[in-house]
Amino acid sequence: MDLFADRLSAAIALRDAPCAVGLDPRVDQLPRFTRQPATGRQRLDVDADAVVAWGRAVIEAVAPIVPAVKPQSAFYERLGADGYRALATTIRAAHEAGLLVILDVKRADIGSTAEAYAETALSADLLDADAVTIGHYFGTDGAAPFLRYLDAGKGIFVVTHSSNPSSVETQDVLLADGSSYYHSVAQLASEWGAGHLGAFGYSSVGAVVGGTFPGQVAELRAGFPALPFLIPGYGAQGAKPEDVAAGFGSTPGGAIVSASRSIYRLDDSQRNLSRDEFISIVTGRARDMADELASVSA
Amino acid sequence: MDLFADRLSAAIALRDAPCAVGLDPRVDQLPRFTRQPATGRQRLDVDADAVVAWGRAVIEAVAPIVPAVKPQSAFYERLGADGYRALATTIRAAHEAGLLVILDVKRADIGSTAEAYAETALSADLLDADAVTIGHYFGTDGAAPFLRYLDAGKGIFVVTHSSNPSSVETQDVLLADGSSYYHSVAQLASEWGAGHLGAFGYSSVGAVVGGTFPGQVAELRAGFPALPFLIPGYGAQGAKPEDVAAGFGSTPGGAIVSASRSIYRLDDSQRNLSRDEFISIVTGRARDMADELASVSA
Repeated sequence: MDLFADRLSAAIALRDAPCAVGLDPRVDQLPRFTRQPATGRQRLDVDADAVVAWGRAVIEAVAPIVPAVKPQSAFYERLGADGYRALATTIRAAHEAGLLVILDVKRADIGSTAEAYAETALSADLLDADAVTIGHYFGTDGAAPFLRYLDAGKGIFVVTHSSNPSSVETQDVLLADGSSYYHSVAQLASEWGAGHLGAFGYSSVGAVVGGTFPGQVAELRAGFPALPFLIPGYGAQGAKPEDVAAGFGSTPGGAIVSASRSIYRLDDSQRNLSRDEFISIVTGRARDMADELASVSA
Repeated sequence: MDLFADRLSAAIALRDAPCAVGLDPRVDQLPRFTRQPATGRQRLDVDADAVVAWGRAVIEAVAPIVPAVKPQSAFYERLGADGYRALATTIRAAHEAGLLVILDVKRADIGSTAEAYAETALSADLLDADAVTIGHYFGTDGAAPFLRYLDAGKGIFVVTHSSNPSSVETQDVLLADGSSYYHSVAQLASEWGAGHLGAFGYSSVGAVVGGTFPGQVAELRAGFPALPFLIPGYGAQGAKPEDVAAGFGSTPGGAIVSASRSIYRLDDSQRNLSRDEFISIVTGRARDMADELASVSA
C-alpha cells in the first residue's frame, strides 16, 4: 500500500481540489428526502437511516469534485449503536465512490487504550478510515498505536492549533524558550512522521491547523515544510481562501482544507428539496470551494 | 439533583473507600464463564455479550466496597455497534448496583462538536454517566458543552497530568512564567468549576492526575485545594499507596484512585474459574485496595 501522504497528494492533484467535505450530520437539520416512514421503530434507528441517506447524497454530490470526506464521529456517536452502524456504512459508501476518508475522532489516551482506539478507526475489519485525527497530549506512547498503521497506508493528523476562539488559551501559551506551545506540538507530529515521507515531500503524519488563524498557518508551514495540514474552519467558521493560502506547499498535498456546514446547510425554506435538487446544490458549492482553493494553492 | 462533587464525597465517605474500579474489557482476557455458545452469531456480538457478563460480575463483586466504576470507552467502542450497547447496559447495571459511573472517554473538540459528545456521555436518555473525562486542549469553548451538565449533578475530570511515561514530553513543558504546562491546565479546570463548589469543599470539575507522578500529585493538591482528582495508574501501572497519599484532601472526595487490571486480571491457569470464584477474587482485591487507600487518606 502506498503511503497515505502520497495517496492524499495524488488524489488532490488528480482533481485539482485541495479540499475535503466534512460530514457533520445534525439530525434536526437533515433535508426531508432522507426520512422514511417511521412506523413502530426506535427513534435513533430511524435517525441513523436518515443520516446514512444524507451521507450517501452528499458523497454522490462531492465525489466527482473533492478527494476526501471527513466524517465527524461525534455526530454519529450521538445516535448510539445505530450511529456506529451509520458511520461504518457511510465510510464504505465513500470508499466505493473513490473518496479518501479522514475520520475526525480526536482520540487520545495512554498506549494500551490508544491501541483500541487506533484499531477501531483504522483496522480493515472495523471502520477502516484512511486517516484519523488524534490529540497530542499523551506524548509519544499515546501516539505509537496509531503510528503503527502508517506502513499500512494510513495517515494521522495531530490537533496542533484548532479553529475555535478559545484555542489561544491553551495553544498559544508562551514557553520558556520563547516559542508557542502549538509549535512544540507540530514539532512532535513532525518527529512522529519523519520515517514516513512520501514522493511529494510530505509525511503521513500531519497537523490539524485551523484556517481561522492565518498567522499560525503561515508560521507552521514555514517551520514544518513536510507536515501536511488538515485545515478546518473554512466557510461557516469564517476562514477565507486568503486565510488558508499560506498553508499550501509547493507540491499538492501540503494542505487539505475542510468545510462542512457551508457545503450542505439548507435554509428552512429548502428542507423539502428533492434528493436531486439537494445533490445539485451541494455539488455546486463543493465546486465553488474547490475552485476558490485551487486558485490560491497554485 | 445534588452536585456531583457532593455525591462523590458522600459515596466515598459512606464506604470509607476513596477508589474506583476501572472497567477495561479486553475480549481475549475474559474468564471463560462469560462465554455463551456462539452458534451462527456475529463475532463482535458474541464478544459484546461476554463483555456485559464480565462487567456484571465485576460490578457485583465491587459494588459493596467501592463508590464508583470507570468504564474505558475505547474497549467498548472496539466492538462496534454491539460495544456501544454493551457499554450502555453496563452503565445501567452499575447504577442499579448503586455505583457512580465515571465514563472515561477523554473527548475534546470545538464547541459545536463537543456538544454532541457531552450529550452522548451525560444526557439521561443516552449513556447517562455521572461524570466524564475530557481533554483541555480546545479551551473554554470546548469545555462549555460539558460544563452545562454540572447543574444536572454531573461531573467532569480534565486530563491534567496523565499516568504514562511520555506524558512529560507534552505536560511538563516549562512555560515562560516558570511554571509547568500541566499547572495551567489545572488552573483552567479550577476556573471552569469555580461556580460549582460542594459542601465538602470540592468542585464538580476535577483533574485527572496520574498516580505514577507523586510529585505532581502533591504539587497540584497544594495549588488547587478545591479540585477533586481522579488518579489512574494505581496497581498494574505501578503507583503505590504512598504515591497517591498526597492527593487526598482533608475531607472525603479530594481524590478517587482508580485501578483496573490489578483488580480482575487472571493468570492463564485461572481462566476456567466459576463466576462465583471470580467474584470472590475480585471482591478480595477491591477490598485490599480500599483498605490500603483508606489508611493513607485518613
